[in-house]
Formats: sequence, C-alpha cells, structure tokens
Amino acid sequence: MDLSLIGAKMAQMSGLRSIMEDVANTAPSRPSEWLNLSIGNPAKIPEVTETWHRIAMETVAEQFTTASLQYGPSRGAPELIEAIIRYFNQRYGWELSEHNVVIGPGSQMLCFAAAALFTGVNASGMNRVVLPITPDYTGYQGLCLSADGIAGIGSDIEKIGDRQFKYLLNRQALEERSDIGMMLLSSPSNPTGRSIDADELAALADVSLRRDVPLLIDHAYGDPFPRIGEVLTGPTFHSNIINSFSFSKAGVPGERIGFAIAPVRYINPIVSFLSNSVLHASRFAQGVAAKAISSGELDNMVRAHITPFYERRRKIAEDLLTVAMPERVAWRIHAGVGGMFCWVWVDEEWFDDLDLYDRLKVKKVFIAPGRNFFVEPARSAALGRHASRCFRISLTTSAEALESGIDRIAEAIREMRDDPRRP
Amino acid sequence: MDLSLIGAKMAQMSGLRSIMEDVANTAPSRPSEWLNLSIGNPAKIPEVTETWHRIAMETVAEQFTTASLQYGPSRGAPELIEAIIRYFNQRYGWELSEHNVVIGPGSQMLCFAAAALFTGVNASGMNRVVLPITPDYTGYQGLCLSADGIAGIGSDIEKIGDRQFKYLLNRQALEERSDIGMMLLSSPSNPTGRSIDADELAALADVSLRRDVPLLIDHAYGDPFPRIGEVLTGPTFHSNIINSFSFSKAGVPGERIGFAIAPVRYINPIVSFLSNSVLHASRFAQGVAAKAISSGELDNMVRAHITPFYERRRKIAEDLLTVAMPERVAWRIHAGVGGMFCWVWVDEEWFDDLDLYDRLKVKKVFIAPGRNFFVEPARSAALGRHASRCFRISLTTSAEALESGIDRIAEAIREMRDDPRRP
Repeated sequence: MDLSLIGAKMAQMSGLRSIMEDVANTAPSRPSEWLNLSIGNPAKIPEVTETWHRIAMETVAEQFTTASLQYGPSRGAPELIEAIIRYFNQRYGWELSEHNVVIGPGSQMLCFAAAALFTGVNASGMNRVVLPITPDYTGYQGLCLSADGIAGIGSDIEKIGDRQFKYLLNRQALEERSDIGMMLLSSPSNPTGRSIDADELAALADVSLRRDVPLLIDHAYGDPFPRIGEVLTGPTFHSNIINSFSFSKAGVPGERIGFAIAPVRYINPIVSFLSNSVLHASRFAQGVAAKAISSGELDNMVRAHITPFYERRRKIAEDLLTVAMPERVAWRIHAGVGGMFCWVWVDEEWFDDLDLYDRLKVKKVFIAPGRNFFVEPARSAALGRHASRCFRISLTTSAEALESGIDRIAEAIREMRDDPRRP
Repeated sequence: MDLSLIGAKMAQMSGLRSIMEDVANTAPSRPSEWLNLSIGNPAKIPEVTETWHRIAMETVAEQFTTASLQYGPSRGAPELIEAIIRYFNQRYGWELSEHNVVIGPGSQMLCFAAAALFTGVNASGMNRVVLPITPDYTGYQGLCLSADGIAGIGSDIEKIGDRQFKYLLNRQALEERSDIGMMLLSSPSNPTGRSIDADELAALADVSLRRDVPLLIDHAYGDPFPRIGEVLTGPTFHSNIINSFSFSKAGVPGERIGFAIAPVRYINPIVSFLSNSVLHASRFAQGVAAKAISSGELDNMVRAHITPFYERRRKIAEDLLTVAMPERVAWRIHAGVGGMFCWVWVDEEWFDDLDLYDRLKVKKVFIAPGRNFFVEPARSAALGRHASRCFRISLTTSAEALESGIDRIAEAIREMRDDPRRP
C-alpha cells in the first residue's frame, strides 16, 4: 500500500498525541489509580459545568429541529457570527463585518487550514510555518502537510531569581529565516503560560507586514475568554494578523468549536477550505457558543470562576513544588501568573524528560515530557541540553491529585539525582 | 499574498458550492418566495424530526457534562464505536473490532482524509482519486488537494424505454488508467440514485485488489441507513474497500457525523489524520448517533418513514414530469426506484444546463446544473453534449414546492425549445 508524501506525514501522530495514546492504552481499565498530569482537558469547575449544561439543554430544546437537521453555511451559523461581531466590536472598538469571521470545528482545524493555504510549496519555492517562540503547542507540528513544513526559532532564556525563568523572542534568528509562509504562536502559551507583550507583538507584526505573510495568534487560553493566565496583549486587528479563538478551555472541548477573526483576504480562503473538507462546524455547538456569548454568561464564567480558579491552582502548584522538590537540584518554572500548566526546567546534566516520564509511569503518574514542545531546527540544537530538561504539569486535575502527583514527581527527581548509574 | 499550490486549489469552491453560495446570496431576504430544488438537505419528515429531537434531548441531559466537557479519542467515542461494531457484526456477520472503525465530523471529512493519504504525489509518481462512474457527487472534486488530483471515467449510457436511461461502468476506460490512487463512488449515487450491482462491485473490487489501492464506497444514501433509493449491494468487508457512512441523510446533517469501516491498514492513517487536523467529531453528535443505533430507533425511522417517504416522492416527481414536460422534447430520467434526487437528461442540441439555471432563477426556482457532476477528462469530452444536457431536482422540499417547481421547469424548457434565438 502506498501512502502519498502528504499521507506519510499525516499518518504519523505528533509526539504528544503518541503520549496521549500511551496514556489511553496504559490506564484504561482502572483510570482512578492513575494521576494524569499530562492532559489538556479544562478543569471541572462545578459552576462552569452547570452553566454550560443549562445552555446546552436550552439550545437543544429551542434550536435542534431547525438547526441540526439542516446543513449550514461553511462560514458559520449567522447567529454565532453576529454574536461574535457584536461582542468584539463593542469590546475592542473594531469594525468587523461577517466577512472578517469564520467558525471552525475547533481552532486546530482553522490552524490546519491556514497552514495548508499559506505555507508549503508555491510558485516561487517552499514556505514554512515558523514558530517564532519555542517551545510551543505540539499540535502545530501535526498540522503541517509535510514533514519539513515547520520550523521553530529557539528562544533565549532569561533567569529570574532562584526559581523562575522566561523565554525571550530571538528577533535576529527570526529575521534570518527566508522561508516564512506563516508565523504561528499560542499566547498565553501552551506549555509555558507565557504571553507576548506589546513590544514583541509589534516586532512580530512588523515581520509579518514586511514579508506580507499572516501572523496567526492562537488565543486558546487568552483574551477575551477563557483568560487562563496573564494576558499582556489582547487580540489586535491588523492587516497581517489572524486571531484564532476557542471555546475548549472555557469548558467545551468535546464539541470542537472555535473561530478566527482576520482581514477578508485571509478569511475567505479558510471558508473555502472548510467547505471543501469538513463542510462546517456542528450547529449545536455553534448554537451553544452563540448563547454563551450573547447572554454574557461566558464573560461571567471567565471572570467569576475560570480565571481565579487557575490563578489559585498555579499558586498551589508552585507552593507544592517549592516544598516537595529535593535539595541540590537546579529547577525553575516558567514565570507568569496563572496558566493551565506548570512548565518546569531541571537544569542538571543528569536530567532527561523521557527518563522522568518512564519513572513516573511506574509510580502511576503521567506528565508531558518537554522535548515534544520544541521544533526543528531549534529542537535538535537543544536536545541533550534544554529541550530534554523540561516537562509540563497540567493544573486541571483535582487538588489532591496535583498534590500527590507533585510529591511523586519530586520523589522521581530525587531518585534521578541519586541514581549511581547516571553519567 | 502568496497561497501555496495546495492553497490555491483549496481556496476555490467546487462548482456546486458556488451554486449554493449563489442560492444563499440571492434568496436570503425572502426565502419563502423561492423554490429551492437544488439543495441536498434531507426532507423534514415529522416523525423523524421528533425522534431525533427526543434522542438529542436525552443525550444532552445524560451525557453532556461527562462527554462534551472533555476531549475525546480521535478514533471516536467508545460507546459509538461499540454500537457500530455490534450493529454491523450482527447484521452482516462481520467480525469487526474497534480497529476497523473511525468516526469523523461528517463522511466528507473522512473522504478528504483518505484522498490526502492515499492519492497525490508519492515516492514513485502521482496517483489520483478516480471516480469510476461519473456523474457523481460534486464534493469529491473539492476534497482533492491539487487541481489535477481527480479523474472521472465517462460512463456508457443505456437507454431504457422512452423516458429512462442508465449509466454503465466503462470497465475498459477504468482499466486504462495507470494513475489510480483510490477509487471513490457514492452508491446509491448523488445525483443519479444509481446503485452499483454485485457484478460491478466485483469488477471494482478486482481492480482495487490488483492495483492494491482502496476503493472507497460512500454509502451516504445507502444500506443499512438511510436506505434512500434502491440498494442493490450492501456494504462489503474486503481487503481493499473503505466503506463510509453518514447520519446526514437520515436526518442530522447539521451535526456533521459519519464513520468509516475498513481494514486496519486504512483506518489507522485516517485516525492519525483526524488527530492532526480536526482532533475528533463532536461528542454530542457521537452520543446521539450511538443512541439512535443502539436503541433500534434509527432502523425504525428508516423502515417506517425514510425509505417509504422518498419512494413516494420519487413517484410523485416522475408523474409530475410526465404530465408537465412539453412535447417534442427528448427527455429521460435516470432509472431506479427512490433516491433523493431526479436526474434529468434533455437530449436536445438546444438544451444547456446553465441556460436552464438562469431561466429558472428568473422564475424563482433553483435547480442544480448537471455539468458540475462530471469530472475531467470525461467532463470536457461531454460538454456541449451530455454533460451540459442534464440537471438535478431535489425531492426534499414540500410536495407543493415540488409540483410548482416542476411546472416552472417544464415552462422554462418549453421556452428554450421555442426560443427563436437558439442555434
């Protein structure tokens, strides 16, 4: 059986999806015995769960027989597009029309479409998805149709105090890339929680303008919802920026609903791409999203529950790490308040992220090894050093699981430190 | 702004989607004034609508807080996969395991993934999606990542009596293609309602086996549900066949839910493709589908309502055409009982499908022009002749709209026949 070149790439799962398969295959029979700190599911916050459930019940009662029993427009359901336009125009003073918006079955599908449309082989050569600040979301590697279709810029590192650090945009390395088809980043970032500041945004927008390529900013954790983590810059309407948004981290990842806001020249090709592939997003999910925005309940959930929840969780995790981590280990976490994850760097020669993963699996804990979040060419350059000395802890499990999980992480790291076989 | 080569192709909409845009843009303000016989929405059958609505209400009440608020597996929700396995193993005596099934956000996305995986440029050259019997569903043209990625085999035509005809598989023309990466057909077919018979299925399976390429059979209208149209061959489990199924025509197109059954070697790459692009289908929609299958209600809807409804509609349309169509016009419809559409061939030199489309637009009726359902190279060969002398009438509007629409179609054709400016 022959796969096409594209097929050979797309038949592989990105590194973290392989980990997720490992999790699913290892712990399915007695999931309660396992502490899964590797996942990206949003936390179960009772008030948030109840609100989404009520909105979903209303949506099915009121709209199912008119909406779900018919095909819809590929751009998205008019009531959701109108709700988005009204919300963003009011909140940010923009002048969006329906031509600036496209709804997708999850923001990842919108990123996938944009990558296929704006990068790859074109009439004059080969352009790539460039991640200007790595590490970044592993799913970005999966969505490129060719194996060498993505490139990551290695970040500089700023150490802050004894226990924190921050990645810095390496402007010169970015400038040196002559193959940018699209820049893509999550802000706040998965895995680090890092938000780009106004200065970095201006620098990236400047590159996108001079090269005339899109800068896709993935606000899955950001402003205006779900505001998980510190948001230094909200979305910006700009000739070269595609803003993508998601309802997943605000609570409904299983329904796959996201949207993009951008100039018409970017939105129209994405609408066609959806029309040719997935047709459109679930109309039920679109109805739920429209109600949540229009009623103001989404804003209420974010303000009253979602943002504060993750701030508290982040504080708890930092405190737990500080207490539990063994002595004589140079560890730091990425700076910032909030975020859905803790990104930990163990700056020791004997540390290896996959070794930690394996040791924790024996202890029935899953974490996400760090190397998967780095992208070539920066990845190879940093393997054996920074890229294999990081790991990600999800903050979305129960507080008890988090506490117990961090204890076992600290225990595993102590074992690694004291392992007589270590090089 | 540069689009990639793939982007330039995917930024275009296939012919029929452009028509749908035209419909949406022309008739939005007073849709009730228009008779839309161009659309593919399933008919609103009250008992079917009520059943789906009840199942949807139950699903949201019971499962929303557990399913929709979490990510799911890219292969699909375990309860739906199990329901499908149980149903197909019992009904057809198969021995499916979960490894033979993948759920997608609509069967079109599954076809898109298969086309990207199994066709296109590979290590040894370029392979295409080959449609062995054309005309066929226009959406197949949209899902190929390159403009020349699809090829249609022109069918032979058998005239049956005075008013019917049938397309025949041209085995020799198919055999002559050396670039088959995947064969793809709908059976029963959109637009013709034509079902492949056992002999044709054996011939296609033989080609797929000798070339070792997949034969993707799209059962969107077929067996076991929704059984719209005559089904001469049910799904077959075979080393080279991918069977795709949809819940759209059984009633819930707006929720985008379909699945494929095939050998593991075909299913696994599709699962990875979904994981990298759209992640997974809506969990609500998967819950609804699982309930409909497991409870037996889907079978009940098909048997008691869906199949009989379209049989009656088809009979009504044929009778209306026979009464209304003007004399001295050599017209035929594609043979078969049932089907969601009437496929009409006006075998006259003065007939042109786009001319009919424009004349009917003046009369506030939309039909689907025939040429869009033909694919190169067969399309060009038949333009000016057969490919531009066909059109499709949807049977899913109200009986009154169908009657009035067919009257206006006959009137437009009479005008065309009598037009003194005609060549």
